[in-house]
Amino acid sequence: MKILMTGASGGIGTRLRELLPPIYPDLVLSDLTPPPNLKPNENFKQADLADLAAVEAICEGVDGILHFGGFSVEGPWDTILQANIIGGYNLFEAARKKGVKRIIFASSNHAVGFYPRHSKIPPDVTARPDSRYGVSKVFGEAVGSLYADKYGLSVTCLRIGNFGDRPLDQRRLSIWLKPEDLVQLCQIGLEHPAIHFEVLYGASYNERAWWDNSRAYEFGYRPVGKAEDHREHAMAEQARMKPDPVGDFYQGGAFCSAEFAGDFSKVWEPK
Amino acid sequence: MKILMTGASGGIGTRLRELLPPIYPDLVLSDLTPPPNLKPNENFKQADLADLAAVEAICEGVDGILHFGGFSVEGPWDTILQANIIGGYNLFEAARKKGVKRIIFASSNHAVGFYPRHSKIPPDVTARPDSRYGVSKVFGEAVGSLYADKYGLSVTCLRIGNFGDRPLDQRRLSIWLKPEDLVQLCQIGLEHPAIHFEVLYGASYNERAWWDNSRAYEFGYRPVGKAEDHREHAMAEQARMKPDPVGDFYQGGAFCSAEFAGDFSKVWEPK
Amino acid sequence: MKILMTGASGGIGTRLRELLPPIYPDLVLSDLTPPPNLKPNENFKQADLADLAAVEAICEGVDGILHFGGFSVEGPWDTILQANIIGGYNLFEAARKKGVKRIIFASSNHAVGFYPRHSKIPPDVTARPDSRYGVSKVFGEAVGSLYADKYGLSVTCLRIGNFGDRPLDQRRLSIWLKPEDLVQLCQIGLEHPAIHFEVLYGASYNERAWWDNSRAYEFGYRPVGKAEDHREHAMAEQARMKPDPVGDFYQGGAFCSAEFAGDFSKVWEPK
Amino acid sequence: MKILMTGASGGIGTRLRELLPPIYPDLVLSDLTPPPNLKPNENFKQADLADLAAVEAICEGVDGILHFGGFSVEGPWDTILQANIIGGYNLFEAARKKGVKRIIFASSNHAVGFYPRHSKIPPDVTARPDSRYGVSKVFGEAVGSLYADKYGLSVTCLRIGNFGDRPLDQRRLSIWLKPEDLVQLCQIGLEHPAIHFEVLYGASYNERAWWDNSRAYEFGYRPVGKAEDHREHAMAEQARMKPDPVGDFYQGGAFCSAEFAGDFSKVWEPK
Amino acid sequence: MKILMTGASGGIGTRLRELLPPIYPDLVLSDLTPPPNLKPNENFKQADLADLAAVEAICEGVDGILHFGGFSVEGPWDTILQANIIGGYNLFEAARKKGVKRIIFASSNHAVGFYPRHSKIPPDVTARPDSRYGVSKVFGEAVGSLYADKYGLSVTCLRIGNFGDRPLDQRRLSIWLKPEDLVQLCQIGLEHPAIHFEVLYGASYNERAWWDNSRAYEFGYRPVGKAEDHREHAMAEQARMKPDPVGDFYQGGAFCSAEFAGDFSKVWEPK
Amino acid sequence: MKILMTGASGGIGTRLRELLPPIYPDLVLSDLTPPPNLKPNENFKQADLADLAAVEAICEGVDGILHFGGFSVEGPWDTILQANIIGGYNLFEAARKKGVKRIIFASSNHAVGFYPRHSKIPPDVTARPDSRYGVSKVFGEAVGSLYADKYGLSVTCLRIGNFGDRPLDQRRLSIWLKPEDLVQLCQIGLEHPAIHFEVLYGASYNERAWWDNSRAYEFGYRPVGKAEDHREHAMAEQARMKPDPVGDFYQGGAFCSAEFAGDFSKVWEPK
Repeated sequence: MKILMTGASGGIGTRLRELLPPIYPDLVLSDLTPPPNLKPNENFKQADLADLAAVEAICEGVDGILHFGGFSVEGPWDTILQANIIGGYNLFEAARKKGVKRIIFASSNHAVGFYPRHSKIPPDVTARPDSRYGVSKVFGEAVGSLYADKYGLSVTCLRIGNFGDRPLDQRRLSIWLKPEDLVQLCQIGLEHPAIHFEVLYGASYNERAWWDNSRAYEFGYRPVGKAEDHREHAMAEQARMKPDPVGDFYQGGAFCSAEFAGDFSKVWEPK
Repeated sequence: MKILMTGASGGIGTRLRELLPPIYPDLVLSDLTPPPNLKPNENFKQADLADLAAVEAICEGVDGILHFGGFSVEGPWDTILQANIIGGYNLFEAARKKGVKRIIFASSNHAVGFYPRHSKIPPDVTARPDSRYGVSKVFGEAVGSLYADKYGLSVTCLRIGNFGDRPLDQRRLSIWLKPEDLVQLCQIGLEHPAIHFEVLYGASYNERAWWDNSRAYEFGYRPVGKAEDHREHAMAEQARMKPDPVGDFYQGGAFCSAEFAGDFSKVWEPK
Repeated sequence: MKILMTGASGGIGTRLRELLPPIYPDLVLSDLTPPPNLKPNENFKQADLADLAAVEAICEGVDGILHFGGFSVEGPWDTILQANIIGGYNLFEAARKKGVKRIIFASSNHAVGFYPRHSKIPPDVTARPDSRYGVSKVFGEAVGSLYADKYGLSVTCLRIGNFGDRPLDQRRLSIWLKPEDLVQLCQIGLEHPAIHFEVLYGASYNERAWWDNSRAYEFGYRPVGKAEDHREHAMAEQARMKPDPVGDFYQGGAFCSAEFAGDFSKVWEPK
Repeated sequence: MKILMTGASGGIGTRLRELLPPIYPDLVLSDLTPPPNLKPNENFKQADLADLAAVEAICEGVDGILHFGGFSVEGPWDTILQANIIGGYNLFEAARKKGVKRIIFASSNHAVGFYPRHSKIPPDVTARPDSRYGVSKVFGEAVGSLYADKYGLSVTCLRIGNFGDRPLDQRRLSIWLKPEDLVQLCQIGLEHPAIHFEVLYGASYNERAWWDNSRAYEFGYRPVGKAEDHREHAMAEQARMKPDPVGDFYQGGAFCSAEFAGDFSKVWEPK
Repeated sequence: MKILMTGASGGIGTRLRELLPPIYPDLVLSDLTPPPNLKPNENFKQADLADLAAVEAICEGVDGILHFGGFSVEGPWDTILQANIIGGYNLFEAARKKGVKRIIFASSNHAVGFYPRHSKIPPDVTARPDSRYGVSKVFGEAVGSLYADKYGLSVTCLRIGNFGDRPLDQRRLSIWLKPEDLVQLCQIGLEHPAIHFEVLYGASYNERAWWDNSRAYEFGYRPVGKAEDHREHAMAEQARMKPDPVGDFYQGGAFCSAEFAGDFSKVWEPK
Repeated sequence: MKILMTGASGGIGTRLRELLPPIYPDLVLSDLTPPPNLKPNENFKQADLADLAAVEAICEGVDGILHFGGFSVEGPWDTILQANIIGGYNLFEAARKKGVKRIIFASSNHAVGFYPRHSKIPPDVTARPDSRYGVSKVFGEAVGSLYADKYGLSVTCLRIGNFGDRPLDQRRLSIWLKPEDLVQLCQIGLEHPAIHFEVLYGASYNERAWWDNSRAYEFGYRPVGKAEDHREHAMAEQARMKPDPVGDFYQGGAFCSAEFAGDFSKVWEPK
């Protein structure tokens, strides 16, 4: 399979450039700018997601896409609009035009970040984005659903938690995603014959998970990361952080408390 | 209350211009172009939703918004992008900046149009849009959720079925919305003290409903339209229509079959 | 089995005096005053439920109680308090003291009368009484639960719908209870070995039922009444009745609209 | 807001007299007898709940009621009847007559005490009271439901767990309610615009909770107490207590084992 | 694909011999005895399912099996044991040994025939067989589950309702399966890439269905039969049949009442 | 009550021979061969379950059966067929002929062994057997269901986890069954008046249980074993065991990995 990975110069992309080639040797990398440490045997093609023609060009002959491109944190509306809304639409539309059969869309826990931490949610819930970034992920999931139902693409949306070698604080104990486990999820999305349109959580085998990821297990996901193995380190890091009443209550953490002007503490606060 | 209604020159807006003034005399109408039959006592302000400054101007001093503006059927991506994506974001952002407290967002059954007719769905399901138009409605709901959770606005999304004086065919028997019932839903969204963020179905008291609208009933919705009273007319009209295997299977009807290239009949078709 | 039936002079009691003796020949009847047409072979014992000693006396040697006594419609608080609250407690306490093993308590649909007609409810829901009478039925169910859990009595609460030879109006099509079907439910309550504490709906096999009565079916209930067989008659009667917006919306009917001062139509009424 | 607190001389009332005045300075205290340490700036009005006229008098001009009055443990039927049944009815009826808009009713975990500890319950379950006291709480919730649905009062029932500065034994680790958290719940009941009729659990953020209290979180409840912080103390206290097979199995604890004559160990006991 | 159909001389097999060849030209027919009207271009191989070696022989080179063989009504234990238990095991074991990848197993509504007609069941329920025949179908489903989970076969169990050109009585209005719709289900089982182990109901688009078949719709099942189109005929036939209190109550009909010695009418019957 | 226990020479039977006589002194033991340490006061009757006449003979005059006989681990098909399929049928059929009223059938966790460990299952799920042995348990449960529904026997199926004096490894911490707790379950099955057909899990009060056993608690099950008390020992033993990726993922453990040829690791394995 010829696989295109967008966002190749970003955090996740950089790590997957190490892990994917043994599995998918015919890997095309793309981003706005090439990774600084690009190796000679790597196949990089520059493209701006906001440019449909450029995106079509990199989709040529591709069997499956790992779409990690776009703007990956909260940003101004115009940035999000260009990179994630227009860019996201272009990615799906270019794939359709070029006959790409499978797309793995990097959605985010921030698409549902305003769910409280005390609730455990499956994928099939009303979106509660915690940021303009999160809204753009809801948009991307919706485009993916349309392109699956109407045009027959196979689309897997991964609501990625916290990608990294170990969970960094208390919140991450619930949402950690070990890089090797993301690779598994990508393989499921690229190869599993049963995928039509799916939303899966991008999380390892975390005892304190906020998400019901049994749908991923049904597709054969067998994560090896266990956040609890890193509990002491994460709690020690947490102890150094300032309390954040809004961020500590919701799943989205600091994405929720940023710009927060809602009614979190309206009712019972002394007046 | 000073109420702003966008989309005042459209189908729904035209009808609500008759029904709303007795309830909300201080009504501001807006659209790209004025309604042809604008009456002297009506207060019209032109604005292009894609122009944030213009939208801010019409939000000045407003208490609540009925947002029926935007492009109301399937269209090319650029049209949908400008009118519904950028326009929808502008509406919420302008409202926030101008301190508008309540927004009723005209979402659509096409946000969930790819659910089959044999299933009955509550509001809290994964979106399955049936068109670029439907995707833009999912986007609008997501922005509404963000602006409620983060900025404290009260947001009501109405997934409107088929608005009109009577249901026009078999499909509409399940999704009909009598204009007087839409008025009720608007009042709930504008006045009910318990609304934080809600998705309600815009449908009358239809015996063959595909939607569980009990959440609306909890807020006091008491629809007076009953689609079944118009059954004979609707079925007679239906008999004149061509069969549409894809559209007849899904809730979204012809929005689903348009451009359809999916796998509706892949499995069992004679080869 | 020696069976005591309270409320023997009331509407249900009068009818059951005809139907029960072939099944339970050792039947003791009780009420405040004897039935006018008491037959020589009937065994009547007068008792006021508000008098604990009197209630204990009629419980002597009894194996099971059909408790249809008390005040059976809405009434002033003092009446309900004496007849149904104090009377209801006395009945359970006297039964406990005298070693009666089984009690069938005539609860009522009015214990849940403020559920809307569009919702279908199982027995296991929060009570929503529609009257002081309904509150007294919730109280009786709670006492029954306590006496089952703490003192080991077998208690069956029947939320009786509309008892009679045929359903009298549209509402009754959903809640009709044919007298022979009530007899079945009494037998289940008196004899079924599995009854610890149960709440069952007292309704026949009604196609338009608002209640999920599958628990009764599990105990072997096989109702023979089918409200739909009387549809034409009931709808003709309905056509003669005045509309009652509150009563027509809720399951409890006119019990809900009586004394109603709530917010049924607050939101959308023209001001 | 002018707030009336009944039961001002009881355990909860005594503590709330310290915590409420900064929030609700216009606080009227009431009880059968004045608190021994009544301060000059406190406003106390004596009243017997069993005396409707007296209760009406203290409701004069009041905006909201915190009803902690009545008999607060298991007692003889006549005591419960007067203080909690008749007294509870009088409280709601007096409030209605005097136009009080909001009532917070101190219900109790003993309204559902016969649920086993291994099950986790939401508010919307069949009541399973563990005592005459518990029955009176079910009665009070039912009256509250009626007065909300029929007369338009806003009613919040709090099923209070174990109120105190720290949890006293193993059972209390699951049901502890820190006084400051009760204050939050009272504020929600008195002020939240969305309250029509609600049953919430009066419990802090306890990891081993037996109750699903997400409804309270939806209304903005943000408890600060965490029972687990007191685990060692509670378990040490528990080790000094005698085993109580019945009480240790059910949520209601010793309220369940008192007077217990049921079938807890009938089946498998050696004969 | 080379497809083997067992039970080729039976009722279903006879009809499918007409419908399948246009879709699966390479069709091998098998049964204990050849169909009387075998055509020259049909490929028939005799085999006794109770003979493992014979079953292995007919599985040679086969890609998928439609297993309609075995005894298809209630029978003595030895008959069921040989044909359906031992024969069913042999079929799966032979397929495994010969590398057949896909099996469609003709299960039956009689595997769940003791569910009452008033309940609507999905596939995922405890089996309640109504006959020894029904037990053998539960066994076959269990073997299918094992061979899917352990040996990687793709297994589809069809709980077939009533196969035929139109529904024959009232019960069949709920469970009718039009032959063309069975063909669809077979194609899904043989070709759909997502099938690992599934239990689907073999029923057309019946308005009065007792089964929730949405799982089949998810795999693309689009039945064309509508039992309601034949309602008048079926009800007329029903009027000629004798009442069968046991059979009319349960889904399995006469399979339930045969040999019935249970407690259907124990409780309330006059003694 | 005269009780017959089959499998008296097996592991469970040997232990129950010590625990049952104080409760059921009239105990008949049966197996293929007598227990080596049979005591003079024990009543042993040899029988081969595959011989219907022999089974009928040992059922003579019996009130209830504890059926622990048959082959109790994975074995060749012919062994399972004779001992568990034919033997299981014979047991139920002999009991019916001889008028035995109650049967406790030793089913097994291996009837649902292919459920993953991360899911918590109630008894009412689709069987997912992990072995031919597990299939035979599904068969036995189905026969039990038929004999309860059709012939009126009272049947209790116990899906036994791991029977023994303490849990032996990590997996057993979730499924441990203390012998005294099995005795309780047997008593419930033999004596509880409410048992018609039930599937219960044979497990003690294990904190890490994979099964929802609340149905057993409703029948009065009050287990005394707590696996967590043995956690250190079990984890120490676990540390000595080899990893088993398939067995460690599914509830059935090594029964799942034996003969495993499925797709456990197909998707994401490096190629």
